[in-house]
Amino acid sequence: MSMRKRVEEVTSWMNDQNIEVAFINSTENVYYLSNFYTDPHERLMGIFLFKNAKPIFVLPAMEANQLRTAGWENEIIGYSDHENPWERIEKSIKKIDLGNVEQVALEKEVLTYGRSESFLSMFSEVQVVSVENKLNDMRVVKDADEIAVMRRAAKMADFGVQIGIDALVEGITEMEVLAKIEYELKRKGIREMSFSTMVLFGEKSGDPHGNPGERKLKAGDMVLFDLGVVLEGYCSDITRTVAYKSVTDKQREVYQTVLNAQLASLDISKPGTRVGDLDTIARDIITEAGFSEYFPHRIGHGLGINVHEYPSMSHLNDGILKEGMVYTIEPGIYLPSVGGVRIEDDVLITVDGFETLTKFPKELQIIS
Amino acid sequence: MSMRKRVEEVTSWMNDQNIEVAFINSTENVYYLSNFYTDPHERLMGIFLFKNAKPIFVLPAMEANQLRTAGWENEIIGYSDHENPWERIEKSIKKIDLGNVEQVALEKEVLTYGRSESFLSMFSEVQVVSVENKLNDMRVVKDADEIAVMRRAAKMADFGVQIGIDALVEGITEMEVLAKIEYELKRKGIREMSFSTMVLFGEKSGDPHGNPGERKLKAGDMVLFDLGVVLEGYCSDITRTVAYKSVTDKQREVYQTVLNAQLASLDISKPGTRVGDLDTIARDIITEAGFSEYFPHRIGHGLGINVHEYPSMSHLNDGILKEGMVYTIEPGIYLPSVGGVRIEDDVLITVDGFETLTKFPKELQIIS
Repeated sequence: MSMRKRVEEVTSWMNDQNIEVAFINSTENVYYLSNFYTDPHERLMGIFLFKNAKPIFVLPAMEANQLRTAGWENEIIGYSDHENPWERIEKSIKKIDLGNVEQVALEKEVLTYGRSESFLSMFSEVQVVSVENKLNDMRVVKDADEIAVMRRAAKMADFGVQIGIDALVEGITEMEVLAKIEYELKRKGIREMSFSTMVLFGEKSGDPHGNPGERKLKAGDMVLFDLGVVLEGYCSDITRTVAYKSVTDKQREVYQTVLNAQLASLDISKPGTRVGDLDTIARDIITEAGFSEYFPHRIGHGLGINVHEYPSMSHLNDGILKEGMVYTIEPGIYLPSVGGVRIEDDVLITVDGFETLTKFPKELQIIS
Repeated sequence: MSMRKRVEEVTSWMNDQNIEVAFINSTENVYYLSNFYTDPHERLMGIFLFKNAKPIFVLPAMEANQLRTAGWENEIIGYSDHENPWERIEKSIKKIDLGNVEQVALEKEVLTYGRSESFLSMFSEVQVVSVENKLNDMRVVKDADEIAVMRRAAKMADFGVQIGIDALVEGITEMEVLAKIEYELKRKGIREMSFSTMVLFGEKSGDPHGNPGERKLKAGDMVLFDLGVVLEGYCSDITRTVAYKSVTDKQREVYQTVLNAQLASLDISKPGTRVGDLDTIARDIITEAGFSEYFPHRIGHGLGINVHEYPSMSHLNDGILKEGMVYTIEPGIYLPSVGGVRIEDDVLITVDGFETLTKFPKELQIIS
């Protein structure tokens, strides 16, 4: 879908809802609406949308050329470091005949309290609504171009896991394996991982949020890889767990339980399924196997421009799967002494079922 | 300084200001007050401070063990993915005798509008003040432990530049050089760069916010490296520019101008100097040389747990340098066709002058 059509869809929603002004300033939603991807750090950047006027983009002056290159055809407020961008914004907005502003929309989960003060001070006594649900609804269903990019991002994640497995050798540290994975990905042009890469050995994999360090690999360790890349603004996210040299019966039991849970959740992935059921079916399998307290997180999350995006897939989610949705399915069991196992794929809902975009094998591998 | 003393300093300020409750939820300030460093992504994490009661930490349940390990001795609200943390928070806060809450403090530049609604809904008609100035004032002067860590982080940045220069060979791409830099740093245990590493060749260095890509190195290119690491939660940030194989008179003139500007700014770095003067003295040199329009950014920024932190060092800043401050000095000139030059050091204010924590040489190097 063209950027212009996406902007039109938001402004059409603003007309329906009688919202005079919206301000969108998350890197991700700005990218979705403008094809311009940037992290302005603490500097203000965003798009003002109006019910009945053309949008205005505000950003640091030195990035204005890149914004034009990305295809932005409307007004740009490019401010210098020593200017207060809100004064420029107010001046530009005053030129527009907004009528009586009764309702404005902003990203409630992104816009800071301080910026909301600046934004709201331009109006008197307005209702504030969230623009995020609308953008979530638009972004949750990926179009063909987005799916094509995400397919390539997932392939890169598969490649990263392979590099990691190939690097396993007695005595290597978690950080050394991590460095090799990211080196090979960067050589293929990946500028950014979608989150801090995880490589965890043995008991360290038993912590669902452990940190890679100087732990050395030894026989009998479970090895957990969790990684993803950002490719043209879209994220991938894969987890695989392998055994190094040997595996105990307990480790095998944990692995098979997680795999069964993951496959069960995939199996019901199709248009019409209740989102929460993806969590429930996996959790029931893990509970029946006696590990319920060792699966402390939700089954997965939406995936796209954000690595964690709408929807959040807990058992409480009453949403319904639709064709074009992409999300993760990632059950895990973490036994402090035995180690942890998590298996995660990126899942695309197709017309009548699903496809995993990540394709790396899932049967238990014992690396020798 | 111990974490407990830092918390005490904030609560003592709250008593002075008559602020009953403060909420601090940026990764950086939470780390500063608790020694616990985590990025909870979209999940809520933070510290509630009270004028007359012990603090409460709220975070995802699965991270509670790590928080205890980091040394947190007070109440922890560890919530699961399917719980609303604000219900748990309200319950805990109700147990405290807060008296009449007239004023609360929050991080205005961090807390989202949505979370401010949840936070403020617990009270009726309170004044909202920012807790950030207080924390900025505390964090701007680094103690001996912080300086020791930042010295090591700066040394890693120096090392990264050396790796980058050593990798330069005709035909190599920007991304390949970037991958080598980060690989060697990760092998030394660095988990995170403090921002996206920049390696820019030739005309691409002429864009102050260019992006590394597949551009191949050729003779006559200026090569700009801008990189830093996160070490034990503290950032470094260095920029160096070198010439590859040959240099034109124009490139040499630009380089010397930037270097003169940087040295002049360093030269006045000592306790008592007005912060804005650091920018002015450098900008005057660049302006006299005829390049004023090609230096579009401020001279530098504070450095610490954030790579860009207080103070923002534009010519307007009337603050005064104090012993223990650490910041960057990074003038640059960007000529679209000729290429760009930026030279950046991490600067520590000492008792009577300055020391650069980054030590990489600055005379113009022509790499052959």
